[in-house]
Formats: sequence, structure tokens, C-alpha cells
Amino acid sequence: MINKSLKFRKEAQPSDLEAVRKIAESTGFFYPDEVDVAVELVEERLQKGDASDYYFVFAEIENKVVAYTCFGPIPVTKGSFDLYWIITHNDFRGLGIGKKLLTETYIDAKKLGARAIYAETSGREKYEPTRQFYLKTNYTVDAVQKDFYDVGDDKYVFKYALTGEN
Amino acid sequence: MINKSLKFRKEAQPSDLEAVRKIAESTGFFYPDEVDVAVELVEERLQKGDASDYYFVFAEIENKVVAYTCFGPIPVTKGSFDLYWIITHNDFRGLGIGKKLLTETYIDAKKLGARAIYAETSGREKYEPTRQFYLKTNYTVDAVQKDFYDVGDDKYVFKYALTGEN
Repeated sequence: MINKSLKFRKEAQPSDLEAVRKIAESTGFFYPDEVDVAVELVEERLQKGDASDYYFVFAEIENKVVAYTCFGPIPVTKGSFDLYWIITHNDFRGLGIGKKLLTETYIDAKKLGARAIYAETSGREKYEPTRQFYLKTNYTVDAVQKDFYDVGDDKYVFKYALTGEN
Repeated sequence: MINKSLKFRKEAQPSDLEAVRKIAESTGFFYPDEVDVAVELVEERLQKGDASDYYFVFAEIENKVVAYTCFGPIPVTKGSFDLYWIITHNDFRGLGIGKKLLTETYIDAKKLGARAIYAETSGREKYEPTRQFYLKTNYTVDAVQKDFYDVGDDKYVFKYALTGEN
């Protein structure tokens, strides 16, 4: 049922500012200043268009944004992209939307010249579902940096190679 | 003889814009746009003062800047600092200036709350002296990310822990 009504949109629109804020807040995962950063990236995309290095895919159900990704090229690299954000609204978690969103994201990233996409997350227990999500969607652990974010808060870098058949 | 006349300065001044450009160019290591970035960070420091997150230590011999570091806190971390740049003018390499510059840099980084300082560099053969420099100055390899910069161009992340006695 979710599958039937799930639509993807690649162009940001002004209403996404509020949608992204609500989605980020719904998770209870992010600090207020992190939520602000998420919204600011949408704002940059709206202002600069394709001159912005932040790209988006929005997943909609009945015209309501329920999840999104934000991604773009990593400066100084050739073909390495960062998956800056992937968030599903708390009310729509566990339905496989994130995985479908990634597939859509890869299509666009490859068009933009991506060889690989990287996602960074914390080693804290709170982020165990996030790490499991990346492993289940066939990411590999590319690096673990102990105490990077803080003492006892390691950085995990996940990598997904965008080969021809993805 | 170098030791006697080597002086360190922590405050940037307008003449550093040109000094940094010349030092970066002297190495033959950087692309023109990389040199521009090095200069822009000095510019930001001059404009914003301590509101800038880019800090500097300049090494001078007879009032001429011969080497410098640029460093600062890594966003979203508590106490992790990035050593963005460490460059010695080509005419002054091999004299141990880089190592002394690091010692001065650590003093300031610790005052700013640094627990550890990170330096990223390429795995290409050209950067072998750079990697050797970090190993000789007691950095450890914290991560190696294969093909990160490009196919065949790995990313090395070096780490130096700023414990009490450094």
C-alpha cells in the first residue's frame, strides 16, 4: 500500500523548509542546531538551484513529504559523494521507505558522476539502528575513528560503491 | 643557527596573504585553486578575528615567514581539531622547522580545548614525504580510505593525541 502511493520528487520547493524541519524533529534524534543545519541546506538549494552542491530526493505519500535524502560531491575528491542526511518521519519508519529513497538517490548521484557514496554516523548505542540500516542496505564500514566526535563517541564511515549495475 | 633566529607569531597580519601564497607556491605541491583556498583562510582570519575557526602559527626567520600552520576545531566534534595546512617554504625544508611549528601549534590548540589533532593526506607516492613527516612526529594512522580522493588515490587520516605532557 505504501509502495503504491510513494512518489519521489527531486526538485526542492519552499514548503520543504517546513517539511524537513518537521521530519528532523519527529525523530527526536537531532539537536536544535542540527535541525537548523538540515533546513539551511534546503534553503541553499532553493536560493542557488544547481549552483548548490546539496542535492535532494523527497519521498512523498499523498503529497506529504515523509522522508528525504540530502547528498552531494565531497570537495577535493573525484566522484566521492556524501550522504549528508537521510531521514524518515517517525510516523513512517519501518516501511522500507529509506531503502527505496536510497535507490532513487543513487540514480541521481551517478548522473552527477558519483563513484561511491559515504555516510558518517556515531558509534554510540543510540545510533545502532542507523548503523544497522547502512549494513542492511549493503554499505561497508570504510573507517572507524575512535573518540572522534567525543571521548567514547567514535565516528563510523560507511561506504556504498556505485558500480554499473546498482 | 636556524633555531636562534626562528620566531613564532600567532596573530595574522595583512602581509601573510602574500607570504602564504608564496610558501604554498614554492612547494610545487598544490593546484592554483588549492593555493587560493590557503590564502582565503588567512583572509577570513584577518576579517573575522577570533570569530574565525581558522587559527594560525607563523614561523619567521629575520621577519620573513618561512612556514606556517592553519588549524581549528572540527564542526560537530568536542575537542577534535583539524590541521588544515602545514607548509614550509621550499628553501627552508629539512631544517626541522615543521616539527617546532607543530609544538607551537599544540600549545594553542590545547588552549582552545583540543584533545586530538587530525591531518589528512593522500596515499599517492608524491605524498610519501608528507606521510613520513607525520609518522616521524608521532602521529598514528587513524584511518585509510581506499580510492577516497580518486581511483588509486587513498585518503590517510593521521592523528596526534594531545595528552597532558605534550
